[in-house]
Amino acid sequence: MSEAGVVVQNIHRTDRSTVDAFAEFGVATVHEAAGRTGLLAPYLNPIYAGAHVAGTAVTVSVPPCDNWMIHVAVEQCQDGDILVVAPTSASDAGYFGELLATALRARGVRGLVIDAGCRDVRELTQLDFPVWSKCVSAQGTVKETLGSVNLPVVCAGQLIEPGDVIVADDDGVAVVPSRKSAAVLEASRAREEREAAVRKLYAAGELSLDASDMRGRLADKGLSYVDQAPGGRERE
Amino acid sequence: MSEAGVVVQNIHRTDRSTVDAFAEFGVATVHEAAGRTGLLAPYLNPIYAGAHVAGTAVTVSVPPCDNWMIHVAVEQCQDGDILVVAPTSASDAGYFGELLATALRARGVRGLVIDAGCRDVRELTQLDFPVWSKCVSAQGTVKETLGSVNLPVVCAGQLIEPGDVIVADDDGVAVVPSRKSAAVLEASRAREEREAAVRKLYAAGELSLDASDMRGRLADKGLSYVDQAPGGRERE
Amino acid sequence: MSEAGVVVQNIHRTDRSTVDAFAEFGVATVHEAAGRTGLLAPYLNPIYAGAHVAGTAVTVSVPPCDNWMIHVAVEQCQDGDILVVAPTSASDAGYFGELLATALRARGVRGLVIDAGCRDVRELTQLDFPVWSKCVSAQGTVKETLGSVNLPVVCAGQLIEPGDVIVADDDGVAVVPSRKSAAVLEASRAREEREAAVRKLYAAGELSLDASDMRGRLADKGLSYVDQAPGGRERE
Amino acid sequence: MSEAGVVVQNIHRTDRSTVDAFAEFGVATVHEAAGRTGLLAPYLNPIYAGAHVAGTAVTVSVPPCDNWMIHVAVEQCQDGDILVVAPTSASDAGYFGELLATALRARGVRGLVIDAGCRDVRELTQLDFPVWSKCVSAQGTVKETLGSVNLPVVCAGQLIEPGDVIVADDDGVAVVPSRKSAAVLEASRAREEREAAVRKLYAAGELSLDASDMRGRLADKGLSYVDQAPGGRERE
Amino acid sequence: MSEAGVVVQNIHRTDRSTVDAFAEFGVATVHEAAGRTGLLAPYLNPIYAGAHVAGTAVTVSVPPCDNWMIHVAVEQCQDGDILVVAPTSASDAGYFGELLATALRARGVRGLVIDAGCRDVRELTQLDFPVWSKCVSAQGTVKETLGSVNLPVVCAGQLIEPGDVIVADDDGVAVVPSRKSAAVLEASRAREEREAAVRKLYAAGELSLDASDMRGRLADKGLSYVDQAPGGRERE
Amino acid sequence: MSEAGVVVQNIHRTDRSTVDAFAEFGVATVHEAAGRTGLLAPYLNPIYAGAHVAGTAVTVSVPPCDNWMIHVAVEQCQDGDILVVAPTSASDAGYFGELLATALRARGVRGLVIDAGCRDVRELTQLDFPVWSKCVSAQGTVKETLGSVNLPVVCAGQLIEPGDVIVADDDGVAVVPSRKSAAVLEASRAREEREAAVRKLYAAGELSLDASDMRGRLADKGLSYVDQAPGGRERE
Repeated sequence: MSEAGVVVQNIHRTDRSTVDAFAEFGVATVHEAAGRTGLLAPYLNPIYAGAHVAGTAVTVSVPPCDNWMIHVAVEQCQDGDILVVAPTSASDAGYFGELLATALRARGVRGLVIDAGCRDVRELTQLDFPVWSKCVSAQGTVKETLGSVNLPVVCAGQLIEPGDVIVADDDGVAVVPSRKSAAVLEASRAREEREAAVRKLYAAGELSLDASDMRGRLADKGLSYVDQAPGGRERE
Repeated sequence: MSEAGVVVQNIHRTDRSTVDAFAEFGVATVHEAAGRTGLLAPYLNPIYAGAHVAGTAVTVSVPPCDNWMIHVAVEQCQDGDILVVAPTSASDAGYFGELLATALRARGVRGLVIDAGCRDVRELTQLDFPVWSKCVSAQGTVKETLGSVNLPVVCAGQLIEPGDVIVADDDGVAVVPSRKSAAVLEASRAREEREAAVRKLYAAGELSLDASDMRGRLADKGLSYVDQAPGGRERE
Repeated sequence: MSEAGVVVQNIHRTDRSTVDAFAEFGVATVHEAAGRTGLLAPYLNPIYAGAHVAGTAVTVSVPPCDNWMIHVAVEQCQDGDILVVAPTSASDAGYFGELLATALRARGVRGLVIDAGCRDVRELTQLDFPVWSKCVSAQGTVKETLGSVNLPVVCAGQLIEPGDVIVADDDGVAVVPSRKSAAVLEASRAREEREAAVRKLYAAGELSLDASDMRGRLADKGLSYVDQAPGGRERE
Repeated sequence: MSEAGVVVQNIHRTDRSTVDAFAEFGVATVHEAAGRTGLLAPYLNPIYAGAHVAGTAVTVSVPPCDNWMIHVAVEQCQDGDILVVAPTSASDAGYFGELLATALRARGVRGLVIDAGCRDVRELTQLDFPVWSKCVSAQGTVKETLGSVNLPVVCAGQLIEPGDVIVADDDGVAVVPSRKSAAVLEASRAREEREAAVRKLYAAGELSLDASDMRGRLADKGLSYVDQAPGGRERE
Repeated sequence: MSEAGVVVQNIHRTDRSTVDAFAEFGVATVHEAAGRTGLLAPYLNPIYAGAHVAGTAVTVSVPPCDNWMIHVAVEQCQDGDILVVAPTSASDAGYFGELLATALRARGVRGLVIDAGCRDVRELTQLDFPVWSKCVSAQGTVKETLGSVNLPVVCAGQLIEPGDVIVADDDGVAVVPSRKSAAVLEASRAREEREAAVRKLYAAGELSLDASDMRGRLADKGLSYVDQAPGGRERE
Repeated sequence: MSEAGVVVQNIHRTDRSTVDAFAEFGVATVHEAAGRTGLLAPYLNPIYAGAHVAGTAVTVSVPPCDNWMIHVAVEQCQDGDILVVAPTSASDAGYFGELLATALRARGVRGLVIDAGCRDVRELTQLDFPVWSKCVSAQGTVKETLGSVNLPVVCAGQLIEPGDVIVADDDGVAVVPSRKSAAVLEASRAREEREAAVRKLYAAGELSLDASDMRGRLADKGLSYVDQAPGGRERE
């Protein structure tokens, strides 16, 4: 989507306190609070379990199997950012490893989301630098062709603009557009509170059929309850 | 396969002592003991390592991206059950999370097998509620269309009837039809004993070629042993 | 590729001290040191995190869903080997489990690479016998048809000859042809040293743009830096 | 699912006139008329465009990469049948080619549905023997291990029993259980009539919003109509 | 990405003469002329060979397995449009068939691009209504949940805004943003002319190495020419 | 696998009369005649139906998304060759189109086999230049990095050496190593003759069970014939 050969500097980042507040909420909560929007494709997986971060997107569009622009992007990163990398053609090469993680860590970057492969999984785990990637691959890349930094990218099926909020945990990755971030944060809080109440009810054995009053609507739709026939196994 | 809009109650469950006895045996053993039948497709993976459960199937057929019938199914579950969920069209949405797990846990349910996605992986891990799913996805679902509970379903390529035995571990998921369960349990025990003896032989350095007397049959099939040519690398 | 029904004995293995020295280096390093060659397809994954081995290849070509030749291959293995198994047609059955691992362990084999499925993941983890496989599957196999042992095989997209060096870690699996192994080992050491120096620079906040003097070449290619427009979001 | 080593003879086939009447209706119509049930997975594709058949299922469960039971099944086929083949473990080998098609054609068989590969595509096209398969593959198979004929099988995600009605066209494959076949046939006819009326309306420019009176329900759900802003491109 | 429940009317379409002029150029040409941007993922395939269209995008965001909004979108279409449909979660159901095609044809719509399945392939072929889809599937959908019409969507990995130019042929689908369309059209023409000249040279046996003067740059990169060794087959 | 930056000239091609004689035989026949070896992965598909070629391999190893070496390879091609292209890392870009086909056609090249994408499908079809590829994709490639020509490559899972025989038809692609080609040709002829005889028997209604005398061996394995129970549908 992006024009190659451009680096946008001094991007407008979502307000830091808003971004940091998102770290309390899981990706599922944020995605629901955003009206079921903003979820990246579920083929993105964390390279190790338990990481949970929120940060501002610095976006990178890379040519296939070429990681040059990631090197260019490092300089554009600052404390609180999450690097978001999308190749212009599908690839499972390993664009990113522990050296780049070391460089990003030195600038306060909180993690990487990449619609391609990463490598050095053991070292990244030791560094506690979380990565959400399409695969793990040691396949090397070249540094020959320009891409772009901080233009909007489509990454794993979602449009991500520089400065947007990225939330990532064991369930995957969500993007919240900057201008919606305050409202989505608010809705996340409200949802979390409602869920805490529901959790208590369920733990006590209450059914959602009753707690959420579903029985009437189910009956309206025609749900019927029957006992299993004595003979058992019908195919129906 | 199933008729939508039906909930079958009071299903015939496999005898509890038989079901519980399956928990001693791994999925590979049970699948072999059942004559290499009953294994669900290997794309089902546990969301965390180390879980191993046996239980009775409560089956749910759900429309794609609609988890309403899982809520309906909770009421049909009892201590010792495993919930088995199959969408009527392929989907990788997240039909199940920690709230539903909390409700199932309150009823003594031992785990979930779902031919689709689940979410809240971190919370499910903390709850120690095991799930075998096609993927992890935070994608939300709706509550609009009826499916069925406790009609036979095809889940990950296997026919599963309510009350059948489900065994699941790090290797995947197997189903044992209720009426075969006693025989398969017996065969699992026998197999385990044989394997314990074989394990001892192998650990002592004995070859299966000798222990299982394969050399003659291999020779009959025409197996020949040659030394590597001095020059080495031939393609053949 | 291979002729069925042949077992090549007394293969020429890469020099043991060379092989063992590879264990210091990760797969990404070895693959780069080999001129970005020799990497097996990234769909091969370790069954547990943290394993890192180097060894000499004993190659097995198996018919689909038939593991007989793995039993034949055990006898051809010796201390320091890694078993490499490739089916002649794509399959996700479970050709290998803990009994075979016990047999291989008794002979000093360091691990298994298989372009298909393995099973008994929990037991293999307890045995600390590492496996890199395409999937985990409890699906059993038969012992009916001959394959070959120690003929060259294509495994996960790479040609592997018996006696070649195999290196495997969390990032995947690489093969180094025997006759290139000394040179690749040397190059791996050199690369590791260079990377240690770079790591120090990056940790101190130095940019690769400067450390590797990339700015001139980027400018030559036409990279331009612009500030984000006040209004923000352009689609470009 | 099936017991290996059994051939069921003299199966109960759906009434011939009912079966033949299904040939008028496309798979989409039949699937809808059956309450959106019975559709095999969409990864099954016809090997050439334009075929459209209805017939009675003769079911075959084959071991992976072994086509012996297809030879056994030929004898069980009669005029008006469709052969349905499911391997017990996923495989993309080529189990079926023009020689078997010649044998089936001689018995009046109308086509093949196989959850695996077939080969001799050019010859099958010339013979006008339609096949719906997962892939095309020249990979040969063996004749070593028993499977079953005319036991229920799960094929491409659907349970199919011998004698059930199979309908297949460019859109895929559907199964109609024998005992439901008369009702589904009736519903297919009714649906086709309704669609003919709708088609006429649509061709005349009438909108489904009006023809099916959707506007009220859409408004109730909250649908709003707005004009595009003068500046155009909003991300919303 | 989009807000559910909104239909944007009176969108700004790319100038009709520009759009129509794109029909002369193939997708590969347009994609190259646009600086290698705008290509939708190659998993989108035409349902029949030989179609080639250019038109203006009317965009539809649909919930998974729910085609209600396509019905809503018909009213927003006019002569020269191409409907672009993206589900909010991956799905291979059949959202579209010949009845909707009949309705769109009545309004002058030139085709459909859908990141999901379509059905009625035979009828669509007879209607000569071209569709580019992820798969063919007879699986029915529901009409329960709102989506949006004419908000920007991500379809098969590309951002598409209402009114953008869509070009589709046997090679796939490309989007050209409205404001870039004149420039890309111009560049397409220039490219086509250059290619015509090159084609003539190549047909006459001239090598691109000479025609495009590549030999020097190849030599600079270190390309070397050697004769095959007498013994032949080296692994190198 | 290959060393980058090398072009091997004056390769040893399989004898022309042998190569040409293979054009009589389909891929399935050749693959069987070669002892079920040499078949490339079934994900390679012809871009149009009905092509059938045999020729000598000119092999090209290309970096991902870089088609420079295909231009280099044209010069190495001569009448009767088939170009075989393998990227060093998985890619679905479009490395090849009608301009390169025009250049190859001018030299008498018979087709292309590529473990990646091609484009200009309509033009290639008009040129009658057959291509077997992993996908169709208009995605452009660069000309930046060296690969190799006429070193052995692994393409779609098979080792291919320059000068080997390639046979391709609607069923896929097979490679026959040069030194085995005469023997495989002979075996293909013999197989074809046997099949012609069998075809006649089958067409006359003879069963393979009798023609190939399988009944005894089936009985030995334990195959049993039973009649369907009156009640019908058992799950077994």
